[in-house]
Amino acid sequence: MRIPSGHEMLVTTDFSVEGVHFRREWHPAKSVGHRCLTRGLSDIAAMGGEPIAAFLSLAVPEDLSQRWIDEFLQGLLKLASEFNLPLAGGDTSESPGGVLADIVVVGSVPKGTAILRSGARPGDGIYVTGKLGGSAAVLDRLYSDARKSIKPSDWRGHLFPQPRIEVGKVLRDKSIATAMIDISDGLSTDLSHICEESSVGAEVSADAIPRASVAGRKVDLQIALHGGEAYELLFTAKGGTQVPARIAGAPITCIGEIVRRKNLVLVRADRARSKLRVHGWQHFQHSSADK
Amino acid sequence: MRIPSGHEMLVTTDFSVEGVHFRREWHPAKSVGHRCLTRGLSDIAAMGGEPIAAFLSLAVPEDLSQRWIDEFLQGLLKLASEFNLPLAGGDTSESPGGVLADIVVVGSVPKGTAILRSGARPGDGIYVTGKLGGSAAVLDRLYSDARKSIKPSDWRGHLFPQPRIEVGKVLRDKSIATAMIDISDGLSTDLSHICEESSVGAEVSADAIPRASVAGRKVDLQIALHGGEAYELLFTAKGGTQVPARIAGAPITCIGEIVRRKNLVLVRADRARSKLRVHGWQHFQHSSADK
Repeated sequence: MRIPSGHEMLVTTDFSVEGVHFRREWHPAKSVGHRCLTRGLSDIAAMGGEPIAAFLSLAVPEDLSQRWIDEFLQGLLKLASEFNLPLAGGDTSESPGGVLADIVVVGSVPKGTAILRSGARPGDGIYVTGKLGGSAAVLDRLYSDARKSIKPSDWRGHLFPQPRIEVGKVLRDKSIATAMIDISDGLSTDLSHICEESSVGAEVSADAIPRASVAGRKVDLQIALHGGEAYELLFTAKGGTQVPARIAGAPITCIGEIVRRKNLVLVRADRARSKLRVHGWQHFQHSSADK
Repeated sequence: MRIPSGHEMLVTTDFSVEGVHFRREWHPAKSVGHRCLTRGLSDIAAMGGEPIAAFLSLAVPEDLSQRWIDEFLQGLLKLASEFNLPLAGGDTSESPGGVLADIVVVGSVPKGTAILRSGARPGDGIYVTGKLGGSAAVLDRLYSDARKSIKPSDWRGHLFPQPRIEVGKVLRDKSIATAMIDISDGLSTDLSHICEESSVGAEVSADAIPRASVAGRKVDLQIALHGGEAYELLFTAKGGTQVPARIAGAPITCIGEIVRRKNLVLVRADRARSKLRVHGWQHFQHSSADK
């Protein structure tokens, strides 16, 4: 493999584990394959990179049907083809328990331009792409057996999330983002990663958070704050930067500001301030404590 | 990550799965970590490459002790340190069944010099490094409960195999090898890969195959021919090439010749010729059919 001259290399690796990241009874094989690659591509997007090649390691139980594997690969390869991404190798093995896929995506960025988690500074605005909480809300409904309340369009966003490669490239190319991460573990968790690595704090406006709608109503604030698997981008930009309202089709929303004091603060509409608790929405675990 | 200028990138990915590649009751955690990385490094060695960074994805059962994980990492990092190899990232997850590690090794070679499987030509000599069958023979004894017949020195070769990075570099640097592969699945299987990708056949001299000694006696020819996890290199070199008898401490043995006719032939001491059957030594499966 060759890296474009003047570029440096990005490597990401992400597990998709049955019972942790998906369930065979809920997720069609095509969705599992698609989401597996989305996990890797989303990490590349979050650095402003372009994907070059993917490598798949797949461990499957002895009794898994060939059809399931074929459909898994169809889902993965269809998404790969949208980015002209070759599946360049990998490994296969028997699994002692459940399907387990590890996706490696290799990408590149022009030298010195990768957007890191460590570049946020006090005064920077905090932005997100798209709407949050939709994927987690769908999972929630699956869990509570409220499957029928999920419209096909809501369901599709959960099953086939689109990695924000184009948005990431624009943010890097136009030097808009000072720090970036993808929202895979939930807004509060991923914002805390940026704050830790940048040695800063953040104030988030509760009202500003763009919430997805599922089954005809907006998801709860808590799901938008903590729900994972959104695969949206969370980035910061210097105060005064003209951040477009839409990039590559994705709405961009300012949700708060980076501050010097190393706390995460949630500001409500009535100006009430509270600590923004950091916790991911546990995969397949109903978190009643935070409702 | 940066690739040295004028180099191209190599990426390998290899699973190590409990019950398939190791057993917790037989293999100390340090050995599992060491062997996990050896699998990746051996693939880099087989292309004549130099390793740059490793990435580890590790899925473990909920009840696995922290001590096991610590020792696994110790074994892996000790081997990595021998090659100044940074563990640059990875992923972790809960596993629904057994320990599962996926190792990614990124390496590089000067552009256009990677040794491929497809370069063997009729008239080339066939060579192997080291001695074959030792690792498989140790497993065999474990299986048949003959653990006491294994000397610590034999056992060590199975638990802590050394990837042949230096040998691979010399073979590439001095343009000795025309094709190369590492013997992870067994000599017969890996030779068949070279022959298939080079569209050639091979004649192997049974007497020439360097057999390891375990418990004071040479392993059976069948184990040397088909036993896996040797992590030695199998390569071809043009007829007339002066191939050193030893490279970077490893003995080099000529075991046969590449031929035009696309068969694998085993030639015995009495000149009797038979078809060289291609099959790997199944991990943890006693193959009685071939004794």
